[in-house]
Amino acid sequence: MPFTQSKPLRFGDCDLTGIAYHPAYFGMLVDVNEAMFASFGVTWKALMFERRIGLPTVTLNVEFVRPSTYGDVLDFAVHVRAVGRASLDLQTVVSVRGETIWTVRQRIVATSLENHKSHPWPDDVRAGLSRYLEPSE
Amino acid sequence: MPFTQSKPLRFGDCDLTGIAYHPAYFGMLVDVNEAMFASFGVTWKALMFERRIGLPTVTLNVEFVRPSTYGDVLDFAVHVRAVGRASLDLQTVVSVRGETIWTVRQRIVATSLENHKSHPWPDDVRAGLSRYLEPSE
Amino acid sequence: MPFTQSKPLRFGDCDLTGIAYHPAYFGMLVDVNEAMFASFGVTWKALMFERRIGLPTVTLNVEFVRPSTYGDVLDFAVHVRAVGRASLDLQTVVSVRGETIWTVRQRIVATSLENHKSHPWPDDVRAGLSRYLEPSE
Amino acid sequence: MPFTQSKPLRFGDCDLTGIAYHPAYFGMLVDVNEAMFASFGVTWKALMFERRIGLPTVTLNVEFVRPSTYGDVLDFAVHVRAVGRASLDLQTVVSVRGETIWTVRQRIVATSLENHKSHPWPDDVRAGLSRYLEPSE
Repeated sequence: MPFTQSKPLRFGDCDLTGIAYHPAYFGMLVDVNEAMFASFGVTWKALMFERRIGLPTVTLNVEFVRPSTYGDVLDFAVHVRAVGRASLDLQTVVSVRGETIWTVRQRIVATSLENHKSHPWPDDVRAGLSRYLEPSE
Repeated sequence: MPFTQSKPLRFGDCDLTGIAYHPAYFGMLVDVNEAMFASFGVTWKALMFERRIGLPTVTLNVEFVRPSTYGDVLDFAVHVRAVGRASLDLQTVVSVRGETIWTVRQRIVATSLENHKSHPWPDDVRAGLSRYLEPSE
Repeated sequence: MPFTQSKPLRFGDCDLTGIAYHPAYFGMLVDVNEAMFASFGVTWKALMFERRIGLPTVTLNVEFVRPSTYGDVLDFAVHVRAVGRASLDLQTVVSVRGETIWTVRQRIVATSLENHKSHPWPDDVRAGLSRYLEPSE
Repeated sequence: MPFTQSKPLRFGDCDLTGIAYHPAYFGMLVDVNEAMFASFGVTWKALMFERRIGLPTVTLNVEFVRPSTYGDVLDFAVHVRAVGRASLDLQTVVSVRGETIWTVRQRIVATSLENHKSHPWPDDVRAGLSRYLEPSE
């Protein structure tokens, strides 16, 4: 089952042609990434500042299928496709009223903030992510 | 020859782990896209408001190779890989002191702001883009 | 009674010293302004695109009392201090766990998007704003 | 003599009514603040990370006189009005083609990033700021 969250397209997220400004989508994606971790009790704040683990995104493959416009509510559905030793593969589908607006495949790698090397997922994070695991066919 | 532009990583572009916040990169990319058009005398403002042509990005394939940090100057090199009837394929390499930081392959499609359908490149835009054309091997 | 809304300080709202980046506060303020109008049934989208009325802010007087940090939830309390012919005076107090973080006095002027002149508040907007009216002592 | 810098109003700085989105102005102001320090050889990066001094803004008093629109070049003129023990009072006038667009009076307080108390200006910063000192009449 995917992790889901809905976010309105805000006034400041739109460009002057009246549609979403694509950089704003990536700020929303970060928020949704963070909310997924919070859903299983792991705050990014604790992960970064207490456990000293950062979560850089290393790849993003995005398709913008149709524009969204001011006033739309974007429904994010995050599918966890794979959890590696230190990596996380996500596929997120963003839709409005059931129609796909944009999709993104994303790889995140857990990284030590001390030595900037990849860092194995802590057990509680791995367990939390596994709740949403839906391998691609 | 690529279109090039350098942009500093600003205070507000960094996250609290001290590295670039990836959504900020996409705002920079939009600026660089716009500057490339201006380099051959076509402002986005005139294109959008006089000729009623928008330039939505339809795909982005991004690799973040290494982080950039506050104070870095990002050198953007935009390679025009193909100019179709209404499409534009770009490959942009972003580096700091000669080291690649991130890369992105991007497709833009010229679109009528009246009917939201794809719109052939005007001749002056096609000629301008062709200056930078370097087909991939 | 003030209009109230709570918003988390997001990862992307913080600067690299770990506290809120002040420009991010103003994006939140716009969101809260918009939500107050929506609370009495007037969407900015309809106001701008159907009735052709814009809502530019003309003054902002801000005091940043203490910093907020990543993970804080900001409680916005918007006090309507005056509703003029076309103007709106707001005083917003933003607090975290009961402590004031920043405050702002703001004047908005309803403006015709056709001729860029001030435009009297429509009756439904005036009635909605009046619900929150609390003149300063 | 004021410190001056010009910045274009970028595509992403505009809202969907076609004028500047006011939160974007504050990101520009931060950039201009930073550039003024750099003009006398003090980078914020060194100030924050080597000397552990932050530069929070504590008050902003802003008037938006007329809107700017996409394609405008904003000319920032920063007048240093007072340099106290740890405080800095700035008055910035932002104009387009000689017409004032917005103005802001701003107080910044040098603050230790170790104990979050105010911190006297280092001598080199004080000397640099004094170059631009123009007390109000």
